[in-house]
Amino acid sequence: MKIGLYFITSSEFSRTHEELAEAVLRVGVRFIQFREKNMSARQMFSVAKNLRKLTWEYSATLIVNDRVDLALAVEADGVHLGQDDLPFEVVKDIFDGIVGVSTHSVDEAKKAERYIDYISAGPVFRTTTKKNAKEPIGLEGLRRIVSSVKKPVVAIGGINKFNIEDVLKTGVKGVAVISAIANSQNPEKSAKELLEIVKRYLDD
Amino acid sequence: MKIGLYFITSSEFSRTHEELAEAVLRVGVRFIQFREKNMSARQMFSVAKNLRKLTWEYSATLIVNDRVDLALAVEADGVHLGQDDLPFEVVKDIFDGIVGVSTHSVDEAKKAERYIDYISAGPVFRTTTKKNAKEPIGLEGLRRIVSSVKKPVVAIGGINKFNIEDVLKTGVKGVAVISAIANSQNPEKSAKELLEIVKRYLDD
Ligand code: NI
Repeated sequence: MKIGLYFITSSEFSRTHEELAEAVLRVGVRFIQFREKNMSARQMFSVAKNLRKLTWEYSATLIVNDRVDLALAVEADGVHLGQDDLPFEVVKDIFDGIVGVSTHSVDEAKKAERYIDYISAGPVFRTTTKKNAKEPIGLEGLRRIVSSVKKPVVAIGGINKFNIEDVLKTGVKGVAVISAIANSQNPEKSAKELLEIVKRYLDD
Repeated sequence: MKIGLYFITSSEFSRTHEELAEAVLRVGVRFIQFREKNMSARQMFSVAKNLRKLTWEYSATLIVNDRVDLALAVEADGVHLGQDDLPFEVVKDIFDGIVGVSTHSVDEAKKAERYIDYISAGPVFRTTTKKNAKEPIGLEGLRRIVSSVKKPVVAIGGINKFNIEDVLKTGVKGVAVISAIANSQNPEKSAKELLEIVKRYLDD
């Protein structure tokens, strides 16, 4: 599983999930998460179906946040779980695909490791995207998680074109961004810039 | 599938889901829905697991509201979907069990009928349990739905021991209650009273 630049869609800025996904797919992003906290399941289904169509067109991986049933319904490649979602050890029994989980410490990462396919670790830096975000773990905290697990680690939280190289140097296999792209004046250009840096560290 | 008295658990009153479920199971209710709008998925999983254990003990049917993934995770017998949840035609593909759907009109009931196993119709009367509840359909509206579909109809909304006979006379196969039991001083006694009336109309 290759992750690289991992774009998480958001409807909290001025564009739709579909517009953002299409912009990043066009410039080469191949790992996308659908994350939405305000729509009804019926609405989410409709958006996720569109994202599935787009990601298939570009042979990209589609991950659905939280809702395993939605992931099953649209045949997503994976689900991403938070610590408050369905337990990952249970999800592995009902979902036959990629399972990722958010972690904030070495302890959480180690607990999740044997059940899941990738670990997201963060927030690395302070971020405004997530309300009630936890204290940043910093590059040091990220490095500790990377060195204590064997599964691929994805860094998340406050990552942008100015700090992404520092993040990549910790040994992560993926870098997740939301606002650096979704809140950019030109999402396509921002994705392209970030992708160029990521590819210098994580090329196949 | 026998429905009869269909109890929907609620944590909005002074008892837990588990306490309520155990009370109604003890007196003979055999169709229970877990409905919860405020807990995290992780918390819901923990409660639903307890309800699954209880309902298995009593050979009762367990239905999970909204979340098909939660139903899969705890091996519930069925899911209940609202008009804003995942589309029932899709759910039938990912969930191999009972699928019920909330309807408010003959039109909604007929659209759902061929995909699902039972139709809930309501609110029959005015109710305080559900915020933003729709206009009541009344006994007349209920009768119209019952006579226009072949699948079993479950009446819901404001049903109590004083009006339940009128509801049963419309030809429904089930009667769903929340507050008539959950908000009772003695849930067990209230469930028993309702069950006795239901059994006069819907005995096997
Ligand atoms: Ni409804």
